[in-house]
Amino acid sequence: MKDEMNVEIITIGDEILIGQIVDTNSAWMAVRLNQSGFSVVRVTSVKDVKEDIIEAINHAFVRADIVLITGGIGPTKDDITKQTLCDYFGSSLVYSEKVYENIKEVLADRMKFINQLTRLQAMVPDNCVVIQNHRGTAPITWFEKEEKVLVSMPGVPYEMIGAMEQEIIPRLLQRYPDQPFIRHKHFLVSGFSESALAEKLTDWEDGLEPFLKLAYLPAWGIIRLRITGVHASEQLLEQTIEAQSVQLRNLLGAAIVSEKDIPVEEILGEKLKEKGFTLGAAESCTGGAIAQRITRMAGCSAFFKGSVVAYSNDAKKKVLKVREETLNEHGAVSLETVKEMATGVRQVLGSDCAVATSGIAGPAGGSVEKPVGTICVAAVVNDHIEYRTFHFSGGRENVIKRTVNSTLLLLLEMLQDIE
Amino acid sequence: MKDEMNVEIITIGDEILIGQIVDTNSAWMAVRLNQSGFSVVRVTSVKDVKEDIIEAINHAFVRADIVLITGGIGPTKDDITKQTLCDYFGSSLVYSEKVYENIKEVLADRMKFINQLTRLQAMVPDNCVVIQNHRGTAPITWFEKEEKVLVSMPGVPYEMIGAMEQEIIPRLLQRYPDQPFIRHKHFLVSGFSESALAEKLTDWEDGLEPFLKLAYLPAWGIIRLRITGVHASEQLLEQTIEAQSVQLRNLLGAAIVSEKDIPVEEILGEKLKEKGFTLGAAESCTGGAIAQRITRMAGCSAFFKGSVVAYSNDAKKKVLKVREETLNEHGAVSLETVKEMATGVRQVLGSDCAVATSGIAGPAGGSVEKPVGTICVAAVVNDHIEYRTFHFSGGRENVIKRTVNSTLLLLLEMLQDIE
Repeated sequence: MKDEMNVEIITIGDEILIGQIVDTNSAWMAVRLNQSGFSVVRVTSVKDVKEDIIEAINHAFVRADIVLITGGIGPTKDDITKQTLCDYFGSSLVYSEKVYENIKEVLADRMKFINQLTRLQAMVPDNCVVIQNHRGTAPITWFEKEEKVLVSMPGVPYEMIGAMEQEIIPRLLQRYPDQPFIRHKHFLVSGFSESALAEKLTDWEDGLEPFLKLAYLPAWGIIRLRITGVHASEQLLEQTIEAQSVQLRNLLGAAIVSEKDIPVEEILGEKLKEKGFTLGAAESCTGGAIAQRITRMAGCSAFFKGSVVAYSNDAKKKVLKVREETLNEHGAVSLETVKEMATGVRQVLGSDCAVATSGIAGPAGGSVEKPVGTICVAAVVNDHIEYRTFHFSGGRENVIKRTVNSTLLLLLEMLQDIE
Repeated sequence: MKDEMNVEIITIGDEILIGQIVDTNSAWMAVRLNQSGFSVVRVTSVKDVKEDIIEAINHAFVRADIVLITGGIGPTKDDITKQTLCDYFGSSLVYSEKVYENIKEVLADRMKFINQLTRLQAMVPDNCVVIQNHRGTAPITWFEKEEKVLVSMPGVPYEMIGAMEQEIIPRLLQRYPDQPFIRHKHFLVSGFSESALAEKLTDWEDGLEPFLKLAYLPAWGIIRLRITGVHASEQLLEQTIEAQSVQLRNLLGAAIVSEKDIPVEEILGEKLKEKGFTLGAAESCTGGAIAQRITRMAGCSAFFKGSVVAYSNDAKKKVLKVREETLNEHGAVSLETVKEMATGVRQVLGSDCAVATSGIAGPAGGSVEKPVGTICVAAVVNDHIEYRTFHFSGGRENVIKRTVNSTLLLLLEMLQDIE
């Protein structure tokens, strides 16, 4: 049994350092590495500057066993990772027929022709293992140095994911067998503030075994609690976490919405499929965000009929059959309107369940009576309807995200009640 | 005139290193810092581990003038940034009445009561400048050491943004006057692969002044070209970039979709407002993503009527008036169907323009004739209709994003043609 293998991730690219893109690669990689028993201890983002890249690699090699690098290996001049690695490892570039064949195959699929710049991607360092990138033209390179491993892979997420799944994770597992076990156990908790939850859990948290660690992560109306444990004995680790989970369930009861670290829409999707119910949505202030959150799940067509994004009063009346009087008397942002929107869309789409939202997401549109952040939502299961008014703060994006979560949670609660 | 001030960002939190959240803070901060003439040279994400935080600060202080830290200052036990900074700077914790007043104010707004853990947030280091966090309970702390600055702020994006805008940026500008000028000039280019574009621009790129740098960033069917320049003379910098931009415009012509680094939906929104046209959408495979992309823009109600997310054939027939024969003869994923969806939704919502999408985003649902990634889209401007079939690869999420971009681009092209 060896020590836990530590991984550092280095993401390379000026576009990250000027904020033109958000680095989503390292989060994905961390999750995937954890599943295989590898622990990410640091993520460093550096510019396309040779000295910066080399300094980052030097530091990472001191601390970590495995260094995974993404980015900077495209065909254009701003990408210098390959050349920098050659300098670092004292490599010469040699032509690889295999890589060239792969490039041709990848581009054939995209019906594009090969130019000089693309052809140069078939030049690879002579002292590394070259791994084919089946989703792009830049090859993956695997270097070893003093028992440590460095892998350079593309920054394009789709290509990185393919490389990690098909090649890098399997090779790491082969290279480093006998990892200790890492387990994360998640609880999604609703109805508490972070401080109130921490206070409620003080005694229980103090009693946690030293190899278990607790973290709180608030996210738009829900708190994600995470117990993380690392131990050489898988059995002991899992038994201990389960014993603590039993205590936590006793403490929190129905406030635990799920024990999976999945978005609310996935919990709801599972519940709807279990009950054989279909869902429709009528969205005003959420503007399609509910539909988008649901339809990013593959297979959602099993229960999702659709959504009417009724951003204008006109659409509310014509498509959702909201009555003119309701809009005139109570306004678009009112419980009366969302109730009619929910029942209306259920009828139009012929679904069992429906949700509806209307509110003032801001920054404009607020009034004294209905300030920015005033949100009305309704949920329908067959003939039963529930509705609520919320007051959210935190800017447009936050208000929309909290509204989506709160609306889906309302429907989820109703479905759990009719167990 | 001093040298350019270098900033390093350290984001702290186990949740980042296990991939539970994506660090979006540093990208936002980088954009904002650039606007004020500060350059971000590195981003480091570390765990909630004292030694790791201290090592990261030590290294950052060697390279950078300013170190900005986010995260790890919540009320719960897993947050150790404040204590670590006290150890690092040799501070004692003292009670701050001002911070306590701010906490009361923030929580009053949320109608929550103050417990012991929250109260502890009013304890602050005695050798730093304490800055109020008007959007949360954890105060911001500003330390100085050997002419260098370190600021610790909350990791919650909404709180971080408030702190940066209202306090940290203004104070940095006061502390470091006379920054050199940093300018980014963006071009959104469609219709090229990355290699083909680089080939077309080779001569022009070789002729760029040494203080200008070019970068290519492909993003779902569009390439974002970026010229970045740093120079002490604002006038020279801007004139040089403009002169190169003139050449670039001559080279690329209509392939330049925009000269702002904004999403396609914002370009389209501006164009629609300019023409006084309204928009509706009928979405099948994009599942609300078009509506969501448009409605995340404040003020979109000026032109956006709504979207019908018709995820089932039933919804396509009932709400969008797609004919049963069309669906039977050609299938839901066909040019005939999207044409009827587009004209249907335009009629239902009474809009001037409309877009429609139907396709197989995958991973399931493909066939030999219509494999995963087959996408049909249509766009209507008054009585004029255009439609296209695309074949996208890259997984469900990518296929949806490319479809959204391509659909909005199609409509944008049509609007540009009727100049």
